[in-house]
Amino acid sequence: MSDAKAVVADYMHHVWTDGEVDACDRFLARTYTIHHDPGDPWDGQKLTLDEFKERVRISRAPFPDQRFIIETIIEEGIRVAVAWRWKGTFAADMPGFKATGQPVKSSGLTIYYMDGGRIAGHWQVTDRLGVFQQVTKS
Amino acid sequence: MSDAKAVVADYMHHVWTDGEVDACDRFLARTYTIHHDPGDPWDGQKLTLDEFKERVRISRAPFPDQRFIIETIIEEGIRVAVAWRWKGTFAADMPGFKATGQPVKSSGLTIYYMDGGRIAGHWQVTDRLGVFQQVTKS
Repeated sequence: MSDAKAVVADYMHHVWTDGEVDACDRFLARTYTIHHDPGDPWDGQKLTLDEFKERVRISRAPFPDQRFIIETIIEEGIRVAVAWRWKGTFAADMPGFKATGQPVKSSGLTIYYMDGGRIAGHWQVTDRLGVFQQVTKS
Repeated sequence: MSDAKAVVADYMHHVWTDGEVDACDRFLARTYTIHHDPGDPWDGQKLTLDEFKERVRISRAPFPDQRFIIETIIEEGIRVAVAWRWKGTFAADMPGFKATGQPVKSSGLTIYYMDGGRIAGHWQVTDRLGVFQQVTKS
């Protein structure tokens, strides 16, 4: 696996699956740009490291045991594309949705933009309709 | 642009934007596998060319003026990843949804799998929640 692919895979594992929020310090650039992520509350924003860590904490809270499984990873130049699946238990309420205690599945594709060995932003689409359908039937 | 990138870009333009269904003959392998496409009625299926053309006709019918705009295209080996935006007028009913005559926007990411210069399948996630929200408020 190339350096950039390893950075992306390790970042997804440590930060998003295991919830090691401070590991952002070694994976991310000082400013992180969410170029496109429809439905994400931070879509279109540039975040400092501290703001990004807060995004991870808030995003993970409803699904504390969540896991990302990488299906495919493709690299060209500074861009790394990842196809992934995701699962987690809906254990804590989200705005507008009461926790069901049930397992939820989803998937998505993300293009990460690298800058000097660190991740500086992404362009992403995830299956939010699938999640919506699962969290609204308890 | 590489040959594979050009095939993918031309395919999206001619088949999906312009609706030249028979152009599938020069872009696609004899069997096309939809590896992953949550919410797509053909998700998980292997299609012949004729079955694929029917999928294009049925999918395009509610949005006959639809356009795909490529944002980024990444290639490694036999895989081509495309980030795209989409827009169209909701001009004809879909199952469960009455046409609104209004413009609709979406976006998605697709990994195309190449085989001998032709496209043999894809792994895709599109912003179906965004479309759902737009077609349910008329």
